[in-house]
Amino acid sequence: MPSEFDLIARYFARPAPAGTLGVGDDCALFAVPSGMQVATSTDLLIQGRHFFPNVDPQALGHKSLAVNLSDLAAMGARPLGCVLGLALPHASEPWLAAFARGFHALADSHACPLLGGDTTRSPQDLAISVTVFGAVASDRALRRDAAQIGDQIWVSGTLGAADVAYRLLDGRLPADDTLLTATRHALEWPEPRVALGQALAGLAHAAIDISDGLLQDLGHILSASRMGAQLRYDAMPIAPALHGLSSSDTMHAVLGGGDVYELCFTAAASEHDRILQSAAAAGVPVTVIGHITQDLGMVVLGADGSPLPTLPRGFDHFPVP
Amino acid sequence: MPSEFDLIARYFARPAPAGTLGVGDDCALFAVPSGMQVATSTDLLIQGRHFFPNVDPQALGHKSLAVNLSDLAAMGARPLGCVLGLALPHASEPWLAAFARGFHALADSHACPLLGGDTTRSPQDLAISVTVFGAVASDRALRRDAAQIGDQIWVSGTLGAADVAYRLLDGRLPADDTLLTATRHALEWPEPRVALGQALAGLAHAAIDISDGLLQDLGHILSASRMGAQLRYDAMPIAPALHGLSSSDTMHAVLGGGDVYELCFTAAASEHDRILQSAAAAGVPVTVIGHITQDLGMVVLGADGSPLPTLPRGFDHFPVP
Repeated sequence: MPSEFDLIARYFARPAPAGTLGVGDDCALFAVPSGMQVATSTDLLIQGRHFFPNVDPQALGHKSLAVNLSDLAAMGARPLGCVLGLALPHASEPWLAAFARGFHALADSHACPLLGGDTTRSPQDLAISVTVFGAVASDRALRRDAAQIGDQIWVSGTLGAADVAYRLLDGRLPADDTLLTATRHALEWPEPRVALGQALAGLAHAAIDISDGLLQDLGHILSASRMGAQLRYDAMPIAPALHGLSSSDTMHAVLGGGDVYELCFTAAASEHDRILQSAAAAGVPVTVIGHITQDLGMVVLGADGSPLPTLPRGFDHFPVP
Repeated sequence: MPSEFDLIARYFARPAPAGTLGVGDDCALFAVPSGMQVATSTDLLIQGRHFFPNVDPQALGHKSLAVNLSDLAAMGARPLGCVLGLALPHASEPWLAAFARGFHALADSHACPLLGGDTTRSPQDLAISVTVFGAVASDRALRRDAAQIGDQIWVSGTLGAADVAYRLLDGRLPADDTLLTATRHALEWPEPRVALGQALAGLAHAAIDISDGLLQDLGHILSASRMGAQLRYDAMPIAPALHGLSSSDTMHAVLGGGDVYELCFTAAASEHDRILQSAAAAGVPVTVIGHITQDLGMVVLGADGSPLPTLPRGFDHFPVP
């Protein structure tokens, strides 16, 4: 079996970009553009909690970085680089090669080079930690506490597919191969909205990426901004693959489903057309789903204009019993 | 049981220092002093691999950050902040409170605030990821590839105590409560040499922190610098607690023992006195243990001046069978 250092060199060490010092020293070094702040986010993914043991390793490599790039996108930051920690129960070379392929492909497409890391053996579960770094001007960063009363609330892309795929794989929805085929890509290959996030910096007010569920994540913007929201359910951009599901399964997936990695953001109504233009330039559809209110709390109006009586909660890693 | 967000807020969220945005947004933001690069390092610690299940949580909080600060020290960087990922089998509040106390105390003593993180449930093992950020001028960073022929090789502090404690706890050394008491602090409460590292930046040539064992870690400097080393065993600063151990156990601990978190560095012989003064100012003893040679490979001379015949290997997470 090759040594730890051989494995790192073979699959993860690449020539460092100009101006950086990459894998192979105590620290990686990178430069930050003058006048910019560093934006950073970290995620720790655990087998059996965040992904299934039999997940395609190439997809897992992609998603491990994607969920972090999504946080940079939600801040309006431009990626600068990342570091990776891997704890493996055993060192399978085909697995590592596929994981590295998925990771590097997404890193390359967002100019976010892997600068360093830590590889170790895990007694039981596979664990993956990724930390990303980006650059953003502090007065343009999309903060959660920056929503304004009257702002339109937007989401990018479509909602619900990842949650349906997750519940099909988990057995909480009855087996349906056609539906799984139509939704699985959203769960395993989320596309972080990095270009959209940068286009919105300085234009939108508040933003968050939807990892735990639309209502829960929008709730973080509302708490931080000390405001409320009124949403219209019939305005939601529901993933076409969900057509045919029961209305309660659909509502659960759209309002409460996690793993979406689309952006939810707020912006002045006067910026409506500029938002549409920026999103078109970034190649991402965006949809207005409601507006920010002075009244605290969240209301979702049904098609008849009256509030929906019960709303699904988001995903909380330590749920209240 | 409190929710994930309650737990994070209670034990980890603190007011962000001026000029930063801390726990509670998609990303943390921090500024980098003009003209400096960002130095970053990440470690992923797994229960059963890097620490014993019954370890004191306050010590674990300390050590989780210490091993990363030690990497900043080995680069000569000044700490700017850190992020933390925690995957917990269950959310024990006393455990979290103690872990946070140990973590924050060390963070405070090095002005390295916790800026963000990720907390999640783990199905089985506790996993901890820490990423630190520091600032260093790129032409002063202590790189592994910067050793020069004729450089003196130095280590800070003393060697061997952590390895002896580890082997006592692991049962590979016979139980000895007196010896465990004398060595355990070195294993569980390592003191990262942050002030020494900054004092050496621009003065020493190459540096590394000793995590896997003196010979293995010095070997990384030699590989990167394409040089060799001659060491003198009787010059090694052996931890006083090891007095009374067999010579082979002592040699294993001193040359091959990991978890040391002292600095090994090289510097021109002409800087000998300035190194001593800088180390004294940083409050850390330092010792010359050998010198860099043009001949590749590593030789350790015994007291009689002849090379030691067998050398212990360092700790490799995926050992060759």
